[in-house]
Amino acid sequence: MKLFSSVNDVVDVQSLVKEALHLKQNPYAYEHLGKHKTLGLIFLNPSLRTRISTQKAGTNLGMNVMVLNIDKEGWALELQDGAIMNGGTVEHIREAAGVLGQYVDIIGVRSFPGLKNRDADYSEDVFNKFVKYCGVPVVSLESATRHPLQSLADLVTIEELKTKARPKVVLTWAPHVKALPQAVPNSFAEWMCRADVDFTITHPEGYELCTDFTNGATITHNQDEALADADFIYVKNWSAYEPYGKVFGGYEDWMLTNDKLKPTNNAKVMHCLPVRRNLELSDEILDGQNSIVIHEAGNRVWAAQAVLKQMLETL
Amino acid sequence: MKLFSSVNDVVDVQSLVKEALHLKQNPYAYEHLGKHKTLGLIFLNPSLRTRISTQKAGTNLGMNVMVLNIDKEGWALELQDGAIMNGGTVEHIREAAGVLGQYVDIIGVRSFPGLKNRDADYSEDVFNKFVKYCGVPVVSLESATRHPLQSLADLVTIEELKTKARPKVVLTWAPHVKALPQAVPNSFAEWMCRADVDFTITHPEGYELCTDFTNGATITHNQDEALADADFIYVKNWSAYEPYGKVFGGYEDWMLTNDKLKPTNNAKVMHCLPVRRNLELSDEILDGQNSIVIHEAGNRVWAAQAVLKQMLETL
Amino acid sequence: MKLFSSVNDVVDVQSLVKEALHLKQNPYAYEHLGKHKTLGLIFLNPSLRTRISTQKAGTNLGMNVMVLNIDKEGWALELQDGAIMNGGTVEHIREAAGVLGQYVDIIGVRSFPGLKNRDADYSEDVFNKFVKYCGVPVVSLESATRHPLQSLADLVTIEELKTKARPKVVLTWAPHVKALPQAVPNSFAEWMCRADVDFTITHPEGYELCTDFTNGATITHNQDEALADADFIYVKNWSAYEPYGKVFGGYEDWMLTNDKLKPTNNAKVMHCLPVRRNLELSDEILDGQNSIVIHEAGNRVWAAQAVLKQMLETL
Repeated sequence: MKLFSSVNDVVDVQSLVKEALHLKQNPYAYEHLGKHKTLGLIFLNPSLRTRISTQKAGTNLGMNVMVLNIDKEGWALELQDGAIMNGGTVEHIREAAGVLGQYVDIIGVRSFPGLKNRDADYSEDVFNKFVKYCGVPVVSLESATRHPLQSLADLVTIEELKTKARPKVVLTWAPHVKALPQAVPNSFAEWMCRADVDFTITHPEGYELCTDFTNGATITHNQDEALADADFIYVKNWSAYEPYGKVFGGYEDWMLTNDKLKPTNNAKVMHCLPVRRNLELSDEILDGQNSIVIHEAGNRVWAAQAVLKQMLETL
Repeated sequence: MKLFSSVNDVVDVQSLVKEALHLKQNPYAYEHLGKHKTLGLIFLNPSLRTRISTQKAGTNLGMNVMVLNIDKEGWALELQDGAIMNGGTVEHIREAAGVLGQYVDIIGVRSFPGLKNRDADYSEDVFNKFVKYCGVPVVSLESATRHPLQSLADLVTIEELKTKARPKVVLTWAPHVKALPQAVPNSFAEWMCRADVDFTITHPEGYELCTDFTNGATITHNQDEALADADFIYVKNWSAYEPYGKVFGGYEDWMLTNDKLKPTNNAKVMHCLPVRRNLELSDEILDGQNSIVIHEAGNRVWAAQAVLKQMLETL
Repeated sequence: MKLFSSVNDVVDVQSLVKEALHLKQNPYAYEHLGKHKTLGLIFLNPSLRTRISTQKAGTNLGMNVMVLNIDKEGWALELQDGAIMNGGTVEHIREAAGVLGQYVDIIGVRSFPGLKNRDADYSEDVFNKFVKYCGVPVVSLESATRHPLQSLADLVTIEELKTKARPKVVLTWAPHVKALPQAVPNSFAEWMCRADVDFTITHPEGYELCTDFTNGATITHNQDEALADADFIYVKNWSAYEPYGKVFGGYEDWMLTNDKLKPTNNAKVMHCLPVRRNLELSDEILDGQNSIVIHEAGNRVWAAQAVLKQMLETL
């Protein structure tokens, strides 16, 4: 594997999931693979789970892992081609990526969308420039439109905890006070559409996701209907795709509560975290026995390790 | 050892001190202990000595050490239970701690007090929530009311450099311009009260420490009297316990000078650092031959390593 | 080697260059040298290349590398001797350096000049205090007046890519919007003056460098004349030495373009990076086949590794 940015970069999704679960049982079985190999984790935005789980995954594989908060420790990056750099930016992404590619064998990069210009965000301009100019394999640590390590960990979690061959998985929109990217729901949707699950998306009118990611899913504005008989409920806020980045007021009653779990199949509740308590998800859910959010976060290590292992094998 | 937050977590203080001094002679003797074990050092506040010495201690034991300045690199933390998170905080400490516990075998955490609400600070709310929700052994890297790795290093230093069986140790208040926590003096006091030393505390009226920490110490407002025949002088500023966080003006003459060393037993001068020169401690002391502050800071490695070793042995 | 701050710290420049090129072919040949040795990289300013390449160099040699952005993660440093520290600074450089020297075997330190007080900057006050008080070997990661790891990498690159025994090397000033230090051009000049190259410096009137660094170079204000028959062109902006830190307006036509390459010997174009595109260097140069800036940055690893190897050998 030379690139891990979406489900489309994966030849065999099911086998990648199995690899992750195998590594969970045998974390150090491939420690020799990463000897004398360097992983560079480059952050343009904050991170907790992705940073620590991927750092650990690389170390488990015997890699030397270097973390750079490029926005804080390095130089202000220019992203536009052709820019006359007489303003506040100090280094062009072409040089930054090119230089980092000299020092490391695999790069992970996180870059959130601006949520101002949909075309720019959905063209994955920043992430793709990193890929183009660094010249080494790249793992997305969340880009403008996708968060594939999260989605792989989510699928690993569902595979690990499901109690029937084809569980019902529901992605439900949740309230928030800020405009959040569509990266996590886009990514979750495209991975679920490739998995052997019965997949439903529910959200208020106006929060339709880009259909490129949801093809194959059942989509409804009726949350109650969607949740009926659910085995897994994935809770997440996102801002509108059209008009891009818009937050419509209201819909506070979309927050998941224990009451809403009643018609489900004692559904397990998932969230990528960080989660705003009592806004996106109630205390009673997060502190109750249906929540698997901490377990899910733990699986981030094995998802990252499976991807890094496949990359190391092709270096 | 599952928790290291105060002297009360230590069964045998003297044996822990000996362990530290043994490790100082044999830094890599237990390098196998930490193989495939991960130490996560989580900072909510700045650090130099604690960060670097504990990172080195973990590495000496063969651990994989990951450092996270969670306030800068991660997400703004919510600390209150039941909060409706519709403001500036992005992640609740329950999730942050719980997730980190999935990734590491031992957590070190630093969280300073707010110095606004004594009950909240002295209940060790933040530190205790970390302990409760992370589910793995925790080392305090300084909490609201204690700095136990510093105090252990201090005791190690006294044990190493003392020239009589039961030295006289004096903790003396020093001037400052800011309101500082009571964590270091509280902690030093409770460790000295458990050690085989003749322990005196001296400070201006109004700077009485919480008696929970000073039980067994001689306490006086007369600095000259306190310093007489001292073998070790521990210099530190702190703000008042009552009214909480108060700084009373004046007392600049409490700064230690060479003159004040005259009636001592050629006392060695200690400080946890960072120290404000010519405010807390004069240049002449810090640059003179009585100062052992750098040597004392060096012992932070062995104190941390002794604690981590005992934790690794019980994993 | 106990100190690496300028070309004057190197006994045999040519042999150090050969060492670097040898390490480029055999990165892990000396991995045993750094076992149980710690490298502390201390930054008072931003860094990308220096940070990551030196971190990798240390790891290649088997060292434990710890990075500290002391200005952001540690305490605000006081640099003045005799200061009464009742203001914003929390820790004196004497203690910070002294303590770090307790924890690590070799220190790298980066500290940019203030560009306000030439005497202070050119006395290398901050860097020299670090050296004096830390008590262990120190590598400059760029100080007020020099950037020796960059210059060594530059010389390694010229040695590696030259097509004649004594190439013509031209350092040409380039436009910028900010006042930049003279560290890189000073350092490049003093290294070139010690190397077996035909060395010319060109800049507009007013940008004369301190002659301590340029002794032996041909200096001209005529850029066209300087570039004729050049084999390597080193592009860099700097502010004036007299009046210190001054930026004179104009001179935008000093930016290197493909047209200016015509009278050269198909010169290879170098820059230390970060570079402001279309201000210091045109897109057409940076994206063309004459640019070797990425390759040059890659050589930073081997320069750092050669220096660290020589230091480890004398520990």
